[in-house]
Amino acid sequence: MSTDLYDKISNLGKRRGIIFPAFEIYGGVSGFFDYGPVGALLKRNIEDRWRDFFVNKEGMVELESSLIMPSQVFEASGHLSHFTDIMTKCTKCNRAYRTDNLLNELGIECREGMKIDELDKLVEENSIRCPECGGALTKSEPFNLMFQVKIGSYGGSIIGYGRPEVAQGQFVNFKRIYSAERERLPLGIAQIGRCVRNEIAPRKGPIRLREFTIIDYEIFMDPENTSYSRIKLVEDQKLRILPISEQVSKTNKILEVTIKEALEEGIVKNQVLCYFMALAVKFLDNLGIPSEKQRLREQLPEERAHYSSETFDQEVWLERWGWTEVSGHAYRSDYDLRNHMAHSGVDLRVYKAFDQPKKVIKAIVKPRIDVLETEFSREDAQKIISLISKGDQNIIERELKTKGFYELTGLPPIRLELKHVEIIMEEVIESGRSFIPHVVEPSFGIDRIFYSTLEYAFAEKGNRMTLKLPKEIAPISAGIFPLVSRDGLPEEAKKLYELLQDEGFKVRYDESDSIGRRYARADEIGVPLCITIDYQTLQDKTVTLRDINTWKQIRNKSTELPQLLREYFKNRLQFDELGKPVEQRKNQSHN
Amino acid sequence: MSTDLYDKISNLGKRRGIIFPAFEIYGGVSGFFDYGPVGALLKRNIEDRWRDFFVNKEGMVELESSLIMPSQVFEASGHLSHFTDIMTKCTKCNRAYRTDNLLNELGIECREGMKIDELDKLVEENSIRCPECGGALTKSEPFNLMFQVKIGSYGGSIIGYGRPEVAQGQFVNFKRIYSAERERLPLGIAQIGRCVRNEIAPRKGPIRLREFTIIDYEIFMDPENTSYSRIKLVEDQKLRILPISEQVSKTNKILEVTIKEALEEGIVKNQVLCYFMALAVKFLDNLGIPSEKQRLREQLPEERAHYSSETFDQEVWLERWGWTEVSGHAYRSDYDLRNHMAHSGVDLRVYKAFDQPKKVIKAIVKPRIDVLETEFSREDAQKIISLISKGDQNIIERELKTKGFYELTGLPPIRLELKHVEIIMEEVIESGRSFIPHVVEPSFGIDRIFYSTLEYAFAEKGNRMTLKLPKEIAPISAGIFPLVSRDGLPEEAKKLYELLQDEGFKVRYDESDSIGRRYARADEIGVPLCITIDYQTLQDKTVTLRDINTWKQIRNKSTELPQLLREYFKNRLQFDELGKPVEQRKNQSHN
Repeated sequence: MSTDLYDKISNLGKRRGIIFPAFEIYGGVSGFFDYGPVGALLKRNIEDRWRDFFVNKEGMVELESSLIMPSQVFEASGHLSHFTDIMTKCTKCNRAYRTDNLLNELGIECREGMKIDELDKLVEENSIRCPECGGALTKSEPFNLMFQVKIGSYGGSIIGYGRPEVAQGQFVNFKRIYSAERERLPLGIAQIGRCVRNEIAPRKGPIRLREFTIIDYEIFMDPENTSYSRIKLVEDQKLRILPISEQVSKTNKILEVTIKEALEEGIVKNQVLCYFMALAVKFLDNLGIPSEKQRLREQLPEERAHYSSETFDQEVWLERWGWTEVSGHAYRSDYDLRNHMAHSGVDLRVYKAFDQPKKVIKAIVKPRIDVLETEFSREDAQKIISLISKGDQNIIERELKTKGFYELTGLPPIRLELKHVEIIMEEVIESGRSFIPHVVEPSFGIDRIFYSTLEYAFAEKGNRMTLKLPKEIAPISAGIFPLVSRDGLPEEAKKLYELLQDEGFKVRYDESDSIGRRYARADEIGVPLCITIDYQTLQDKTVTLRDINTWKQIRNKSTELPQLLREYFKNRLQFDELGKPVEQRKNQSHN
Repeated sequence: MSTDLYDKISNLGKRRGIIFPAFEIYGGVSGFFDYGPVGALLKRNIEDRWRDFFVNKEGMVELESSLIMPSQVFEASGHLSHFTDIMTKCTKCNRAYRTDNLLNELGIECREGMKIDELDKLVEENSIRCPECGGALTKSEPFNLMFQVKIGSYGGSIIGYGRPEVAQGQFVNFKRIYSAERERLPLGIAQIGRCVRNEIAPRKGPIRLREFTIIDYEIFMDPENTSYSRIKLVEDQKLRILPISEQVSKTNKILEVTIKEALEEGIVKNQVLCYFMALAVKFLDNLGIPSEKQRLREQLPEERAHYSSETFDQEVWLERWGWTEVSGHAYRSDYDLRNHMAHSGVDLRVYKAFDQPKKVIKAIVKPRIDVLETEFSREDAQKIISLISKGDQNIIERELKTKGFYELTGLPPIRLELKHVEIIMEEVIESGRSFIPHVVEPSFGIDRIFYSTLEYAFAEKGNRMTLKLPKEIAPISAGIFPLVSRDGLPEEAKKLYELLQDEGFKVRYDESDSIGRRYARADEIGVPLCITIDYQTLQDKTVTLRDINTWKQIRNKSTELPQLLREYFKNRLQFDELGKPVEQRKNQSHN
């Protein structure tokens, strides 16, 4: 069997403690991977880099909320009813399949978002049977992908779920954070956290997992002002977009446009969405995934959630899996907050004072109790009256007048029609307005980004492997090696090790094996610099520094290193500027 | 109702986005708390500080493993059968209670580790009824505290559990990491991660949680060499120990001894255990929890796991809850690896070559098949034979000869006796030995440490609250304030904001409200420095710096700040050394 890039990385991952299947001594469970010492460091560096890009530099904030949440949260969010895959099972061997995946793998094309009966029809028409044992397949049925747990003891327990995304933490805590953050908009609340999804039959290694780390970033904004001032800083940045039209026509041509053009031409409509997509491209680029290996694919209307007016997937080209989504960028409108408001009964609107009081035309939607009570039960009528009073009267009025109906959030949703109400338009003086913020959500799959980073860092030269990671995210910044483990060299090396560690550098000390093997080991886990202490060090305190990318060596005084390395890791100095070149002849064999 | 320290911190926590009950809009679920923007930063700083102390400085490593694990893991670890609380329920209102807690709260003392019938006897003798409704209580029964999930789809699913501790990740991955880390011992593998426990009726706010962050640190070592060379660095550090004897005699006197004395006098037996306890004391001290508010309580034999020969709890004095465990330090022997080895059938022993081959006396334990087959089923006999061959022959021999039996790990465990085997002692030349490493485990509850840190940082002066956090863990290092939001001051302030941010400082810009209110807000979330840009800044580029602890102010050129602040946050400079004192008269009103 020929090994592809994934196989090679997978082997390296196991051997060097980067990433590997979990619980392997028990045979493993598909969809679970663990990060070893090198991987855990790299993963954290990627997360910290994300923080730097998206939170710190933008003056936004971060939340850390619970993984287990009670069922009410997922009733409101819609996950309880909609977060399902369609599955079929073999009546003979009991194996379960995602119906769409099964069809696709057998070469039968099925569109994203196909309904159960459409899929079953394809199964029937093509006489599909279990590919493993040939047994007949059951009718498809929806399967909720959330892991259910019982909170509390027998009898008195309540139902909870492991969160399938972290975003709901931001929504249920929005009011508290908005207030602690002094009521500013736009307000971005990020969260980096574990999620769990009970995927039916996860394959694709670290690409489709049952437990994974996600970053959901909810940017709350005033729907009447969706501009983002920092957009100016990126106006000329190019985006590679695959719009809906190019997918529908199957030409799949990628548009290269600047941010400015994308917005002016309406290729991307929302400024906040566009800004953070640009940042996402830059972010991956910064991790070593070149922008020409990325694209922003606009989701087709049938893929998109019904409340979203535009959604883009940031995709990266991977050798085995082709274009693979690593982040999604959705405009979620006020969908989540509105639903949590309806389900919890807590007012999640914010209030903005006008600069000065002003006259506004306000709709007052009066329920017609007589009509409601003939059509609905007394209880439902009461509920409708309460929902109307809690809703935004102007929105209800506008929807009733334009669409002829307004959907009141409830279980099940109730369709309010014009005949149910009386609408009065009033001119009133208002000193401000209350509204539900709208949300743009960039959402990142860290495990996929982690793997993509490895794939683009991986390099081979003969039988030597190197992870050419950007030095800012390298798990270990420098290896400190005494040339030999005697004659006082280890002591000298340890001094430098402690000096650099005290200065905050992530360094590793290693004295075993030949210097060449130590270099090779360092290359495999992406250590940008190897610092070697040799006999000359004892005389003049100089050490050699070796660059992972070029294997070039330079020499400098060890006391100069803290300051120089700080600048180097901030990309203000190049490797060559860290010292004087070493004659390569003598050291070449060490590589 | 009088408010105590917990109430005050709780209110501050809600108001300023530090920590608050989760899902509050749905009424909350006890045992779940979320961290807001300030809390999430502080929590992460505490975790990073821990890393620095325990992993980086010690040259150890970190792992990131899965939260959901399959049942085999917890069969092997013993959690499936032993991780239970004893509960009783009201037959009338269905409320559930931990029987021991209920008794304790009603003033009936019950020892740790009491059995079900002992507890039920106490309930009966004292005629205990439901404190809420007076109903009769059921007989007590064990309740497993793990959250169960089904992995996979209907029918084909396997049982998994949310991990109640992170340590099992280290054990099941030990062999891989040991090999990636080039087979060194002692090898510490740390993990910081979420855990879940289905506590019966959690109270005590953030002290007893159903979801929490734990740090389990497994230090694997050669049982024949449990020394730790860095112990010398801390020999003279004092420990405050409450030994078993002082608890049994109820005198509860705390022994103050140096590390050296503790080890020499056998108060602490294991050097590795002792070293990391000393580090734990220093760590909390570093978070602002003074060592005189800490103690190391030795667990009583009945509290201790049967495989542990010594365990200490690090306790902190909290105003509402008294002495509260924040970390545990246990000697776990080879218990976990041995059990995973038996359950998985994978050899988890390590091999150490001798410096030179040597003669050793080796036991060969030969099963007596004839005896076994009369006493056990053929199947069990085969299992016993296999378990004997996998076990450490010398240990089996030693235990059989000293105790008369040896417990073979199995389900259920099988008691091997001398009559079942024939023992042959051989002198052989060996070039090394295989053994199961032993483990010392320091384990930290981050949420409790987080709360303890807040409690010791909290200070009041009139109606002003200040979090006097150690500056190294402050969520925000400096606030950057233009004195007024006009005349070019905001632009000047933003320049400084960006400069400091680029240099890696965690800074916040704030221009709203009076400077006094901004200072007050900064004090409440523990911002060590407030930097104010005023009209003088426009002339000479100097700014004022204000200290959170003393409210003193000094003045210096803004261009000097990056270098000075770096030294300041490394504790190499005092606040007074950051510039020249400002006349307080003029600015006093701003405090």
